[in-house]
Amino acid sequence: MRKPGRHFLQIPGPSTVPDRVLRAIDNQTMDHRSPEFGVLGRRALDGMKSVFNTTSDVIIYPASGTGAWEAALVNTLSPGDTVLMCETGHFAWLWDRLAKRLGLKPELIDTDWRQAADVDAIQARLRKDSAHDIKAVCVVHNETSTGCTSDIAAVRAAIDATGHPALLMVDTISSLGSVEYLHDDWGVDVTVGGSQKGLMLPPGLSFNAVSEKAKAASHSAALPRSYWDWDEMIASNKTGYFPYTPATNMLYGLVEAIDMLNEEGMEHVFARHKRHARATRLAVETWGLEVLCRVPEHYSPVLTAVMMPEGHSADALRRIIHTELNMSLGSGLGRLQDRVFRIGHLGDFNDLMLLGTLSGIEVGLARAEVPHNKGGTQAAINFLASTEDAQNADRAA
Amino acid sequence: MRKPGRHFLQIPGPSTVPDRVLRAIDNQTMDHRSPEFGVLGRRALDGMKSVFNTTSDVIIYPASGTGAWEAALVNTLSPGDTVLMCETGHFAWLWDRLAKRLGLKPELIDTDWRQAADVDAIQARLRKDSAHDIKAVCVVHNETSTGCTSDIAAVRAAIDATGHPALLMVDTISSLGSVEYLHDDWGVDVTVGGSQKGLMLPPGLSFNAVSEKAKAASHSAALPRSYWDWDEMIASNKTGYFPYTPATNMLYGLVEAIDMLNEEGMEHVFARHKRHARATRLAVETWGLEVLCRVPEHYSPVLTAVMMPEGHSADALRRIIHTELNMSLGSGLGRLQDRVFRIGHLGDFNDLMLLGTLSGIEVGLARAEVPHNKGGTQAAINFLASTEDAQNADRAA
Amino acid sequence: MRKPGRHFLQIPGPSTVPDRVLRAIDNQTMDHRSPEFGVLGRRALDGMKSVFNTTSDVIIYPASGTGAWEAALVNTLSPGDTVLMCETGHFAWLWDRLAKRLGLKPELIDTDWRQAADVDAIQARLRKDSAHDIKAVCVVHNETSTGCTSDIAAVRAAIDATGHPALLMVDTISSLGSVEYLHDDWGVDVTVGGSQKGLMLPPGLSFNAVSEKAKAASHSAALPRSYWDWDEMIASNKTGYFPYTPATNMLYGLVEAIDMLNEEGMEHVFARHKRHARATRLAVETWGLEVLCRVPEHYSPVLTAVMMPEGHSADALRRIIHTELNMSLGSGLGRLQDRVFRIGHLGDFNDLMLLGTLSGIEVGLARAEVPHNKGGTQAAINFLASTEDAQNADRAA
Amino acid sequence: MRKPGRHFLQIPGPSTVPDRVLRAIDNQTMDHRSPEFGVLGRRALDGMKSVFNTTSDVIIYPASGTGAWEAALVNTLSPGDTVLMCETGHFAWLWDRLAKRLGLKPELIDTDWRQAADVDAIQARLRKDSAHDIKAVCVVHNETSTGCTSDIAAVRAAIDATGHPALLMVDTISSLGSVEYLHDDWGVDVTVGGSQKGLMLPPGLSFNAVSEKAKAASHSAALPRSYWDWDEMIASNKTGYFPYTPATNMLYGLVEAIDMLNEEGMEHVFARHKRHARATRLAVETWGLEVLCRVPEHYSPVLTAVMMPEGHSADALRRIIHTELNMSLGSGLGRLQDRVFRIGHLGDFNDLMLLGTLSGIEVGLARAEVPHNKGGTQAAINFLASTEDAQNADRAA
Repeated sequence: MRKPGRHFLQIPGPSTVPDRVLRAIDNQTMDHRSPEFGVLGRRALDGMKSVFNTTSDVIIYPASGTGAWEAALVNTLSPGDTVLMCETGHFAWLWDRLAKRLGLKPELIDTDWRQAADVDAIQARLRKDSAHDIKAVCVVHNETSTGCTSDIAAVRAAIDATGHPALLMVDTISSLGSVEYLHDDWGVDVTVGGSQKGLMLPPGLSFNAVSEKAKAASHSAALPRSYWDWDEMIASNKTGYFPYTPATNMLYGLVEAIDMLNEEGMEHVFARHKRHARATRLAVETWGLEVLCRVPEHYSPVLTAVMMPEGHSADALRRIIHTELNMSLGSGLGRLQDRVFRIGHLGDFNDLMLLGTLSGIEVGLARAEVPHNKGGTQAAINFLASTEDAQNADRAA
Repeated sequence: MRKPGRHFLQIPGPSTVPDRVLRAIDNQTMDHRSPEFGVLGRRALDGMKSVFNTTSDVIIYPASGTGAWEAALVNTLSPGDTVLMCETGHFAWLWDRLAKRLGLKPELIDTDWRQAADVDAIQARLRKDSAHDIKAVCVVHNETSTGCTSDIAAVRAAIDATGHPALLMVDTISSLGSVEYLHDDWGVDVTVGGSQKGLMLPPGLSFNAVSEKAKAASHSAALPRSYWDWDEMIASNKTGYFPYTPATNMLYGLVEAIDMLNEEGMEHVFARHKRHARATRLAVETWGLEVLCRVPEHYSPVLTAVMMPEGHSADALRRIIHTELNMSLGSGLGRLQDRVFRIGHLGDFNDLMLLGTLSGIEVGLARAEVPHNKGGTQAAINFLASTEDAQNADRAA
Repeated sequence: MRKPGRHFLQIPGPSTVPDRVLRAIDNQTMDHRSPEFGVLGRRALDGMKSVFNTTSDVIIYPASGTGAWEAALVNTLSPGDTVLMCETGHFAWLWDRLAKRLGLKPELIDTDWRQAADVDAIQARLRKDSAHDIKAVCVVHNETSTGCTSDIAAVRAAIDATGHPALLMVDTISSLGSVEYLHDDWGVDVTVGGSQKGLMLPPGLSFNAVSEKAKAASHSAALPRSYWDWDEMIASNKTGYFPYTPATNMLYGLVEAIDMLNEEGMEHVFARHKRHARATRLAVETWGLEVLCRVPEHYSPVLTAVMMPEGHSADALRRIIHTELNMSLGSGLGRLQDRVFRIGHLGDFNDLMLLGTLSGIEVGLARAEVPHNKGGTQAAINFLASTEDAQNADRAA
Repeated sequence: MRKPGRHFLQIPGPSTVPDRVLRAIDNQTMDHRSPEFGVLGRRALDGMKSVFNTTSDVIIYPASGTGAWEAALVNTLSPGDTVLMCETGHFAWLWDRLAKRLGLKPELIDTDWRQAADVDAIQARLRKDSAHDIKAVCVVHNETSTGCTSDIAAVRAAIDATGHPALLMVDTISSLGSVEYLHDDWGVDVTVGGSQKGLMLPPGLSFNAVSEKAKAASHSAALPRSYWDWDEMIASNKTGYFPYTPATNMLYGLVEAIDMLNEEGMEHVFARHKRHARATRLAVETWGLEVLCRVPEHYSPVLTAVMMPEGHSADALRRIIHTELNMSLGSGLGRLQDRVFRIGHLGDFNDLMLLGTLSGIEVGLARAEVPHNKGGTQAAINFLASTEDAQNADRAA
C-alpha cells in the first residue's frame, strides 16, 4: 500500500539527498579519461580540501566509509602494529574489529558509550608507552551510535603533551560537512570521511585526508594494499584523474553538494546543526526522556540518541513510526540494541523538517504507549521561534 | 543565500509534486503519432474517467485550469446566453468575469465568501426562470480562495426539483483527486479539472468531463471555438490520439499520478484529506484564530483559510514564514487580500508534513507578533495521535 | 519487447529534448506568486524576446502551438473579417480551417505544396483589395508538412509595396530557434511559436510575439477571448507573473533551453541546421529519391520531406524503420499521406545523430525494398567531412 | 562552447547509461536497515545470480571493478602464493601488478596482445606444476584493451585435463551482460564483474561470483581482509542486507538494469553485441585498417580495437573526433598507446547508434588525414540491412 507524502529519513545518515544533488548524479556518465573529466576531478578534489580544511592531499574512494577506514590503516601501518582506540560506541568498536582483521593490535580505551573520547585516558596511556609501541591513535569525531562528539583539538594537545610520535587518525564519517572540522589546524594525520551524511550524497564515496607525516609513514608501512594505496591516487589526482575507474556520477553530485554548502556558508551550516540539536534535546527533555550522551560538552550536533524508559522497546516504537508515520529513525546498535532510538538532524535539513520529525516522534510515543509528557514539540517550537538561525540573521543584516 | 532543506509548498495548489511524477515527466518526449503514444493516450483518458467517476467522455487540454473553464462555456453556450453562478469566492468571481468576456450574461448569487454555494438560492432562482433563459448553473466545488466546499449532489437535487433544463457545470480544479467526486451519479454536465492540485502534477493540463446532455448542447452552441472544441478531441481520443500536439510529458506524469492514487486507494486519499483538514482546524482554533469558512458542513478537506486578527497583516506573516522558514502559504485573494492566509493540505501529503506545516505557522505567528495562544500544533499532534488514518487501519486489518 | 538503445526521434518536432532541459523541468514546482517566480517569469519573457528578435511584447501560453495560432486571430480580428492565407501545406490548411471555425473568412492562395508562400500572389491579391477588406496576411514560416521555408522579409516588402494596412501574421512553430527570425526587422505583427521544435522543450508552451500595431488592433477586435487575451497577460507579465496559473515546470525548461541556445551561439545554431539540411538532401539525391520541396531557395533547414517512388508506401517504410530500427520519422500529412516521409533534423542535434538517422533510413529503404541507389549516407559523410561546422571553425580560431 | 546533441560515449565502458537506469538511481536514498531495503537487496543479489548464471553466492561491492579483482585474490590466497596469469593485454597486466602489490607471486604467460588467453600454454604450465604450487589461474574473459575474448570453457577443460586443483578466476568486467557467461557450467571459482559496461550502470559497483570451492579456500586464505571479506557479506546478504553501508542508489539502478536485460532477453542481448561487432569489423576492413585482434575466434563482441597506419597517431584522431564530432573513443593503453583506438559497441546500444559511431569515425579519418578507403560505414549499412537482428526476428515470429 502506497504511503503518501515524503518519507522522513531521520536516521543519522544517509541523510535526505537534496534534489539538486540527485539531479547532478542523474547526468550521463562521461569518459573518465576525457579532458572534461580532469576539470571535474580537480573540482571535486579541491572542494574536498576545503571541506576538510586542509592544504594537503585528499583521496576520494569509490567505496563506503568502511573502506576509507581500512585505507587509513593499510596505508600507514604494518602487521602487528599497536593502535590505540577509544571505544566511544559501536562504530569505534567496529573500527577496532577491522583493525584486528587486518592483523593489527588495537588497544581499546573503554567508555560507557555515553560520552566522547576520554582525552585524559589517551594521554595517560601514551605517557606510559615510552617505547612508542603505539603507532596510531584512532578517534571517532562524531560517534553515530551514541550522539557524542569528541574534541579532536584536545586529543591532539594530549598527544603533543606526551611528545608521543603516534599518528592521529579521526573518523568524521557522520560529522563532515555538519560539524566544524580542521584537519590541518588540529594536526590530524588521517581523516576518514563519507559521502552520505553532512555531504548530502548517497553512500558510495569515501575519503582520506592525509598529512605529510601520514604520507611519510606510508612509505614504510608493510600492510599489503592496492585499491586503497595513496601513492598512485595522489599522482594521478594531480591532473584530476584516477588510477582506476572512479564513481563518475557520484563525483557530479559531490561538486554540486560542495557548491551548496558554500552557498549557504559553512559557518551557517554548522550553526544550523547546533541549533537543531539543541531544539531536539529540549523536546526530549520535555517528554521526560533521557538523552544518551550524558556530557553536555559532548552533545552531537548531528544526531540525538534517546534512551527508552525501562521496559519499553525502542524497536517497537520505531516500527510504529515507520509503518504508520512514514519516518525512519535510527536503531540502537550493538549493546544499545532496542534500548535507544536515534534522531538524525543533519544534512539538507531545516526548521520545519525538524518540527515535523519531532511531531512524528511525539505521535509515535503516544501510539506506542511509551510513558512521556506531552509538549516536546511545543518546546522546540518555542525555542526555534525565539532564536533566529544564523543565516536569517545574516540575511537581515 | 541558499535555504537548506525542503521547501514546504503549502499553498492550496500547485501542491508538492511527488518524485515519481517528476521522474515520469522527465522521460524523453515521444512521437505523438507513434503506436506507443496511442496506448499512453488511452491510459490517460481512461484513468481520468475513473478519477471523475464517469463513463462518459473526458477531454484533456494542454492548458491551465482557466482554459478548461473557457472550454466548458464555449462548447455549450451561445453569445448572450444567461448563466447562473454562485459567487462563493475569488475563483467563482473570476469565472463570472470570464463568462462576461466571452459575451455571456452571468447572473451572480452573492455570498459573504465564508460559505459554499447557496443551494436554496439556486433553486429559488431557477424556479422563477419559467422561460428557461438560464442555460447553465455554474458552481465551484471547492472554492480555493475561501476553503468552502459546495454540495454538488444537493445542487443537482435543487435543479431537478425545479424541472429546469439548465446544464450543471462544476469547477473541481482544487478538489479533484482530493475530495470524492461523482460526475455521473451527481448528474453533472461539465466538470472542469486541473492537474496541479489533488492530481499531484505541475500545472499545464486541464480537463472537461462531459455528459451526453452537454455534448448534445455543444451541437447547437454558437460561441466560436477551435482549440477547446470537444468534437475533434473525442473523435481523435477514441484511439488515444489528439487532434493537435498534446503535452506528452505531462501525460507521462498523469498516468503515474493516477496509478499512485489507485495504489493508495481513493477512499484512503479522501479520508486522509478530511483528517488533515480537521487537525488543521484544531490548530487554528487552539491558536485562537478564526477559520474563514463559517459553516462546518462546508469545511474544505484541501485547504483552510485563516482570518488574521484585526490590525495584523496576513502578507507580513506570510513573508516572514517564506523568508525565514522556507514555506509558502496562500495569500488572501480579491477582497480577502492581506486579511487571510490559506494553508494547503492537499495532494501528496502526510501527517508529518502537516505537523511541520503547522509548526512553521506557529513559529511564524510568534515571529510576526500576531496575538495567538500557543499549542495549536500540540492540539494537532494529540488529534493525529489518537485517530489512526484509514490507510493504517486497513493495513492493520 | 524492449528495444535497446536510444530512440531516434526524427520527426520534425517534437525534437529530442536535451537532458539539461528535462532535468530543469524535473525540478519541484514553485509557488507562482512567490518572489522567486517573478524572477523566473521575467527571465523567460526576456529570453523569448531575444529569440524572436523583438523589443516588443512576447506572450507565453500554457498551450500547444495551435492555441497560439488561435490567440493571434482572436486578439486582432472580428467576426467575418477576411484574412489572406497561403496554402503552403497541411499546417497552413489547418490554420485556414481554424480561422473558419472562429467565424473569419480566410481566402486561400493555392500552392502545389512543393514550395513556400507565393509572394507575388500575395502582392497581387492585396493590390486588388483597394477596399482593404483583408485584415491580415497569414504565412507559415517553415511549413512542417512539406519542408519549404517562406521568405518573410519578402512578404513584408510585398505588403509594403501595395501600401496595404493588413496585419502580417507568421507561424514559426517549427522554425523558431532553428532558423533565423527577425520579428521586428521584418515588420511582423504577430508571430506564433511553439516549444517543442527548435526550442528543444516538450510540447506544452506556445508564444505570440506582438507588434504595437497588433496591440492597437486588439483594442477594437471583437472576437470573444479570455484565455488568449493579450492585455491582462502583458500587464501581469511586467513583473514576471501571469494572470492565471502558468506551466511553471515548462518555464524552468524554457530558461534552460534559451541559455543553451546562447551558449552555442544563435548564428552557430542556424548554420548547423542549414549544414545538416544540405547533408540530408545530398543523401536523398544520392538514393535517387526526390525532395518534396522543388525550389532550392525554399529548402527548409529543419526538415526534409522525401517523395516515395510511385507504388511504394511511405507508411510501410516508416513502420519498418520504427519497429526494427527504433527511429520515428514524420508521416505525410493531408494530401501527402503515405506519399512522403519527413526527416526532422532540428533542435539539439549533431553530425553523428544525423548520420545515424540517414544510415537508418538507408537500412530501412533496403529492408522495405524501396528502389534506391546505395550511398546516400556516404555522400553525407563526405560532405560533413569536407565542411567544418561554424562552431568548430570558431573554436579553432 | 556548448556542443549540441548527444555525446557518443563509444569507449569500451563506461557505456551510455540508459535513461531508465539514471532515473532509478535518481530516487531518494532509503534507510539501508529498513524492511523495504531487504527486498531491494535480495532483488539485486538474485538478479546478479541470474546474470552470472550461478546458483552460488554473488557479492556486490560498493567499489570499482579493481576492488572486485582485489577481493577475488584476498579472499582465496595467502601471502607468497603463486598465481598463473595470461597477459592478454593491459588489464591482465594490471591484475598481475595488483597481485604483486598484495604479496602474491604471479607468473605471466605472455601474448602479443593480439589474441586471447593461450589455453595450451596454461595447460602445459599446469602439467609441469606437479607440486601444485600454483593456487589460481587468472584469466580476463574480455580484454578491454585489445578486443580479444578468451574461451573460458576451454580454460576450464585445460585445467581439468591436468587434474590440477588451482582455482579458476575470471575477470568479466567488460563482458558481463554483453557476452554469454556461465559461471557454474564453466566451473569458474571466482568471477569478477563491474557495473559500468554491459550492465549499463555508472561505475561504482563491482561483483564477485564465488563457487563452493572458492568459499572453502577462503577459510584458509591468510591475506588480511575486511572490506572485501566474503563471509560477513554472505551472512548479511541472506536477508538482503549488507554488513556496511551499501551504495543504495546504485542498487536502484542495478535492479532496473537487470529488468531491462531480461525484457530484451539475454540471448537477444548477446546476439545484438555479436552482430554489431561484426558490422564494426566490416567497416574497419573496408577502410583498409587492421583489427588488432588477429584470431577470428577471439573477436570481442563488445569492442573493436583498430590499429593505426604506421606514422599516424591514434590520439590525434581521437582528439579531432572528440572536439569536432562530440564522440569519445577508447585510447590505446600501455604498450598500445597512440597505436590503436578502441570502439566500444556495448551496453544499451542499437543499429543507428552504431552507424552514427562508424560514420563519425569515417568523418574523423578524413579530417585527420588518415589514409583509408571510403565506404566502411556503407559496408556496415549493407550488412545490417541484410541481417535482421534476433530480437526483430523473434518479434516477427
